[in-house]
Amino acid sequence: MKACVLYSGGKDSSLMAFILNKLGYDVELVTVNYGIYPSWKPAAESASNLNFNHRVMNADSDTMRSAVQTILSDGFPNNGINQLHKYALELVAKEYDVVADGTRRDDRIPKLNMNEVRSFEDRNNVEYINLGGFGHKSMNHLSKTLFEVKKELTNMDNNSDYEIEIRTLISEIEGDSAALKIFPEHLQSRVIGWRKNE
Amino acid sequence: MKACVLYSGGKDSSLMAFILNKLGYDVELVTVNYGIYPSWKPAAESASNLNFNHRVMNADSDTMRSAVQTILSDGFPNNGINQLHKYALELVAKEYDVVADGTRRDDRIPKLNMNEVRSFEDRNNVEYINLGGFGHKSMNHLSKTLFEVKKELTNMDNNSDYEIEIRTLISEIEGDSAALKIFPEHLQSRVIGWRKNE
Repeated sequence: MKACVLYSGGKDSSLMAFILNKLGYDVELVTVNYGIYPSWKPAAESASNLNFNHRVMNADSDTMRSAVQTILSDGFPNNGINQLHKYALELVAKEYDVVADGTRRDDRIPKLNMNEVRSFEDRNNVEYINLGGFGHKSMNHLSKTLFEVKKELTNMDNNSDYEIEIRTLISEIEGDSAALKIFPEHLQSRVIGWRKNE
Repeated sequence: MKACVLYSGGKDSSLMAFILNKLGYDVELVTVNYGIYPSWKPAAESASNLNFNHRVMNADSDTMRSAVQTILSDGFPNNGINQLHKYALELVAKEYDVVADGTRRDDRIPKLNMNEVRSFEDRNNVEYINLGGFGHKSMNHLSKTLFEVKKELTNMDNNSDYEIEIRTLISEIEGDSAALKIFPEHLQSRVIGWRKNE
């Protein structure tokens, strides 16, 4: 059975892909792009290094514009990111019977609550799977044993999170310093390959 | 790294064991027994059929007596089962660095809430892992592809859930009809082997 994992090239979505593959699903990694900036490229590279199929699915840029309006009016990114994540899930659910992402037990954003999960599965007739059984301790340990990871400051060309397109649009609308206020500089971990002969 | 899965021989704890094994953990299946009835036997048989190591760990029967008091005073088993489950987790956490169980996303009992999970991991310095990322749809599908499963009415000798020892003790204290009121007859699924050449 085909399973789609919403994919950023990070440790969490990479672990989700690994687990689903071991469970026998035919895994495809999908990065949703909102037409603002080709931020899917690092994810495509990580996917290729892990030998998974990767697809870019294009979403309407109005979705990103609306999320950015939410973020600018909130002054913080959480609700806007959740909007984008839900849109991405609905988009891929039109094409896959199994939809997964790298949301962990201790993640707060992006995350569906229990009612949203039930509604998402029922309306779309899909299985929804995430990493809700794993916390950050297990994640750190597993990522070390499974993946080669590169730690670096996030920039426009090494990150496929929603953040990059959001930041680009905020910079266009309100300038770079507004974007930097919403997303301060930070370290990120990107998966660049398997650790052993996986 | 050694990982313990609290094991009943059911589909959920069997899937948890499968996933942890694929993630590279050295998996041991543990059934906690409270000294009332040797209800661990079906779990040991399932574990053996799946080629996992299996251990019985003995808990104080006072723990079971106290849980049964809770159940009799509540008139339903949920809180008492949660008591037993927490006791079992604490017991195995003394010997393992990774502790897992088959709790799914849509399970209500037995289940730790987020604060209990954090406290459990921190106090015991363990990783706690469960099936919180999987719902019943995925479970049904995965169990069909992975396991040979036997469906039958629960009885004293085909089930290793907490239920069996609880029922035994209630029967002793208040008679069989009281036990049957708390746990009506029901169908159960027991894993009896791998489906393919896993």
